Amino acid sequence: MTQTTKVAVIGLGSMGFGVASSLLRAGLTVYGFDINPDAVARFVAKGGTEGTLADVAGDLDAVVTVVLNAAQTEAVLFGEGGAVPLLRKGAAVMSCATVAPDFARRMEAACLEAGVMYLDAPISGGPIRAADGELSVLASGTADTFAALQPVLDGMASHVFNMGDEAGPGSAMKAVNQLLVGVHIATMAEALTFGMTQGVTPDKFYEIITKSAGTSWALENRTPHIVDADYSPKSQVNIWPKDLGIVQDIARSAQFSAPISAAALQMYLAAQGMGLGAEDDAAVAKVYARQSGLKLPGEE
Amino acid sequence: MTQTTKVAVIGLGSMGFGVASSLLRAGLTVYGFDINPDAVARFVAKGGTEGTLADVAGDLDAVVTVVLNAAQTEAVLFGEGGAVPLLRKGAAVMSCATVAPDFARRMEAACLEAGVMYLDAPISGGPIRAADGELSVLASGTADTFAALQPVLDGMASHVFNMGDEAGPGSAMKAVNQLLVGVHIATMAEALTFGMTQGVTPDKFYEIITKSAGTSWALENRTPHIVDADYSPKSQVNIWPKDLGIVQDIARSAQFSAPISAAALQMYLAAQGMGLGAEDDAAVAKVYARQSGLKLPGEE
Repeated sequence: MTQTTKVAVIGLGSMGFGVASSLLRAGLTVYGFDINPDAVARFVAKGGTEGTLADVAGDLDAVVTVVLNAAQTEAVLFGEGGAVPLLRKGAAVMSCATVAPDFARRMEAACLEAGVMYLDAPISGGPIRAADGELSVLASGTADTFAALQPVLDGMASHVFNMGDEAGPGSAMKAVNQLLVGVHIATMAEALTFGMTQGVTPDKFYEIITKSAGTSWALENRTPHIVDADYSPKSQVNIWPKDLGIVQDIARSAQFSAPISAAALQMYLAAQGMGLGAEDDAAVAKVYARQSGLKLPGEE
Repeated sequence: MTQTTKVAVIGLGSMGFGVASSLLRAGLTVYGFDINPDAVARFVAKGGTEGTLADVAGDLDAVVTVVLNAAQTEAVLFGEGGAVPLLRKGAAVMSCATVAPDFARRMEAACLEAGVMYLDAPISGGPIRAADGELSVLASGTADTFAALQPVLDGMASHVFNMGDEAGPGSAMKAVNQLLVGVHIATMAEALTFGMTQGVTPDKFYEIITKSAGTSWALENRTPHIVDADYSPKSQVNIWPKDLGIVQDIARSAQFSAPISAAALQMYLAAQGMGLGAEDDAAVAKVYARQSGLKLPGEE
């Protein structure tokens, strides 16, 4: 008789709720945990199993953490009431937040000491792909860890990139990707508004550039938000001071000068400072527009 | 009886030679001019028609200028022995250099005063597509000008974007595109070397990022040059201080703050300062590598 994989998803925000729902759909037994009781209730209504972490932890095969950052990851794993000390030996933790590689290595060591496996597994793809079980995972960890988490990876991801056999490279690759995406979105905003000063309209910008050498995945994905004046957050401005901050922290530790991503970070900080943090990250274009007296589509 | 279009291509560098050759292949009568007599001789050997500009200008339907910048464009059109005063009324000039929109408008006005049509027509695509007649042209000018230059556009381009009915928007769109491409190449270099400090090899970078949200056309096109340690110039570092300089000049005139492209420009200037100006623009990665003690593929 095949045993159903029992997994807890900690963090039921826009990404975690999609991950937990995808795992349900894949036939796993899924417990959802969040500091927001409404999110938990919503997940139970969807088919999630009820229970407290303290009660169910000893029976779990895996814990997937889909929280905001390193501090939250450490808190839910090792803080008061944290999961790792409650898990059985041989259970596996999969950590999905974007964190520094050094932090991932430290978490792996602490888990191993508790007899628990650890997968350094940042995710990419956004809430829609999370809900569809179509995320990309940039993962590194031992072969046993990958094997233990196979049902989880199968349920939530369409692409799993195996970056190596210990924690660190997964988070490193995620930081590299975020450097690129963060710069590309802000550069799209810079180029789009620069073009407006010369009479190039945002829709003409989108039409021509997506067929030209200047295109990027991020540009093709985010420019329509500006053209359509739709800043409902598919991915928030707030993500970027965090993720480009991680990039700059890693760079500083490595004595690596990263001036372009540093410049992009300033634009997202300005967007936060203007009160746009909870808007879609394409709203970084509003910083450029306000700095140069331009009116974006949908503005008076 | 159909009359063969007679065209002069001024500037037989890596782009101009390809344009002139494509026009030959399309069946036009093509004169090639360059300050380098070897380039002219090479073009005549390929089938170009011999003749001095002074002798043939009165008989030309069109002049295509494929020179480096605004100063050279103005010199070959209006300087000593320049083409425009020699052309018959109704002939057309097609200007392909990357220039400021204001310069393009000034050239159009000067041409119109001489009874000559003017197409603001920056090109994109690189030397290989130039040789294949597969360039993209970001063009603006009157309908009559487009019509007069149709055989030329057909012979040299696979995509012609009509940006508007007067000079300016073509050059504006080219500047927008160059802002993006210039930033994307330098950001690829920043991300690739940043990754190396965290143990991500350049080939792993290429493999993963081209399938991830961090990808861009420029990244996919240039990263292999670094992975293969091939810096033979498909497009030189020297292009970017020129083109991002034009971007910054336009931005300054418009009181538009463009910090990300300004940061990217500094990296290309550093590459020039390190003596890498004539290498492929992917060599901007060497600036990052030298600043951080990294060895790129092919380096000791």
